[in-house]
Amino acid sequence: MRTLGVLLFPEFELLDVFGPLEMFGMLPEDFTIRLVAERERSVASAQGPRSVADTLFADDGPYDILLVPGGRGTRREVGNSALLAWLRDKAATASLVTSVCTGSALLAQAGLLDGIRATTNKMAFAWVRSQGPQVLWQPQARWVEDGKFATSSGVSAGIDMSLAVIARLCGEARARQVALWAEYEWHDDPQWDPFAARHGLV
Amino acid sequence: MRTLGVLLFPEFELLDVFGPLEMFGMLPEDFTIRLVAERERSVASAQGPRSVADTLFADDGPYDILLVPGGRGTRREVGNSALLAWLRDKAATASLVTSVCTGSALLAQAGLLDGIRATTNKMAFAWVRSQGPQVLWQPQARWVEDGKFATSSGVSAGIDMSLAVIARLCGEARARQVALWAEYEWHDDPQWDPFAARHGLV
Repeated sequence: MRTLGVLLFPEFELLDVFGPLEMFGMLPEDFTIRLVAERERSVASAQGPRSVADTLFADDGPYDILLVPGGRGTRREVGNSALLAWLRDKAATASLVTSVCTGSALLAQAGLLDGIRATTNKMAFAWVRSQGPQVLWQPQARWVEDGKFATSSGVSAGIDMSLAVIARLCGEARARQVALWAEYEWHDDPQWDPFAARHGLV
Repeated sequence: MRTLGVLLFPEFELLDVFGPLEMFGMLPEDFTIRLVAERERSVASAQGPRSVADTLFADDGPYDILLVPGGRGTRREVGNSALLAWLRDKAATASLVTSVCTGSALLAQAGLLDGIRATTNKMAFAWVRSQGPQVLWQPQARWVEDGKFATSSGVSAGIDMSLAVIARLCGEARARQVALWAEYEWHDDPQWDPFAARHGLV
């Protein structure tokens, strides 16, 4: 059983969080989900709907896997030193650190991705890159795995990355079973990325 | 501006709600999102994470569009006469009534789908069909539009149906823009359904 710690902050992107949680949440015998927020339990997403954190920074424990979403709140949170310190602290003991969309800007600002290959949302690529000049940013990738980091491209890409993480930890057959339950066509090739060209990155 | 009323009940399926809300939520000038629950504002999903309803049955108004998710909570809610009455009441004035996954079992039990073509989750097809013998159930479809009803197949299919609804209401270019923002490959053919065969339905 692994514990998945999911960071929530105001104006997080809905699908960045709940796409992955649909996939991990189908395997309750393998993963325990904990939503974590800095100070307030009720957190409004960028789209409006509010979610409830299970725990706050002040009283949370270590996590086996971290999930850091994107969303327009990241533009503010890259300057939140308490949040960046929390990321460094939790990443130090996690065996896997994952991000979706502009969540990788937070990992980059925390200094966690220096010298690491990583990707992000293709529409916000220039801004995210500016948050971590030492990161080996990949302009064309659905997701990138490098050591204990797995960073995905924009929004829906987090679902594909989560299935890859499930395959890595629980076996490919289990990941394919989850995709079938969700009636989801898994883009299982991390190189698949038609969106990079749409945003002039390749 | 249209109001989208989204039903929450205990053990709703996360992606059934938040896949569609990611898409509609990208167009805040076109859609206002209202999450609605029967009695309590904090509602736990089938996967665990809790969401917060904006309003309760007792004090909500009419909606232009209804969204009814699935999830294992539907097995209980098909016997909830207050919820079925709420569905009949809201559907009477809505211009569009949509469902994801086993959400169509609730519409069927409410008597709203008799004589209407509709679909649902392929893994739970036999059970859903038993909830509405007069419904013209379609065993192979990503989603089905019939009059003011749009019902989708399992879990992730709600995203594709939502983009079709956006295309219908706001134009196809707008739907394609939303899919691009979400870096989502829209299955825009309602007949696309490889999952029906996987569950022996065709």
